[in-house]
Amino acid sequence: MLEYFEDYEPGTVVEGGAEVADEAEMLAFARRFDPQPIHVDAAFAATGPFGGLIASGWYTAGLFMRLYAERYLSRVASLASPGVDELRWPVPVRPGDRLRLRATVLSARPSGSKPDRGVVRTRGELLNQDEQVVLSLLAVNLLRKRPASNT
Amino acid sequence: MLEYFEDYEPGTVVEGGAEVADEAEMLAFARRFDPQPIHVDAAFAATGPFGGLIASGWYTAGLFMRLYAERYLSRVASLASPGVDELRWPVPVRPGDRLRLRATVLSARPSGSKPDRGVVRTRGELLNQDEQVVLSLLAVNLLRKRPASNT
Repeated sequence: MLEYFEDYEPGTVVEGGAEVADEAEMLAFARRFDPQPIHVDAAFAATGPFGGLIASGWYTAGLFMRLYAERYLSRVASLASPGVDELRWPVPVRPGDRLRLRATVLSARPSGSKPDRGVVRTRGELLNQDEQVVLSLLAVNLLRKRPASNT
Repeated sequence: MLEYFEDYEPGTVVEGGAEVADEAEMLAFARRFDPQPIHVDAAFAATGPFGGLIASGWYTAGLFMRLYAERYLSRVASLASPGVDELRWPVPVRPGDRLRLRATVLSARPSGSKPDRGVVRTRGELLNQDEQVVLSLLAVNLLRKRPASNT
């Protein structure tokens, strides 16, 4: 169980979850946030390079975040995230795809300025039912250290 | 009007739009995609470092994408995007914030492998009503060149 900064040891892998890319939700998301034809126009998308609708990369990122928050990020110790690097969508997500999380701790170091916390860098991935990586990113998270009384 | 690859000249700036971070939408998004207490639990958030609820960074990214798709990305020439780098959320977004887009073409080069398209790199930003940058990223987009008959 990843609870405090000290638990995020480099090499630790958390894997699991099953978020389905529901077609209606995918379309509603794209209509509001990413209304490009390839994401919202089924007839157009059918004639395109993917042979049908594909999810907005930001919807895929939302499904990733859901699993990352539920299964990886500590509920008691997570502070703000300054950002994300190398966000990639190597394989398109299609309606009905079943996606799971893989999160790997790359590094963990105590904060230089604030003694109560540390900085954890994570490779986050989302894989589909065919074991293809559909999303990959590098996340930076600030996590509180375990309180002295809990050691 | 940015229509084909050739129109995305380095230094071009597109600015505008007004997306409001609606509290109900912000909460619904976070409950589904990013259920961390700071995004979904108003009582908890009130006692935290921000003194209230802040938007999931992925909701902010969604508002960015809406404006980016509507105002910057060509409807006729945009192909897939391989990814995004340096995604940052330097200032939190709060309910009621009014956000606008600023997109700056950083570079544009013809594709080395496919003669019909080019690669455009863009600094994308979202600014709030106080002129603070709340989201910043580097986007890579593939755009078709202008067809010869249209020149």
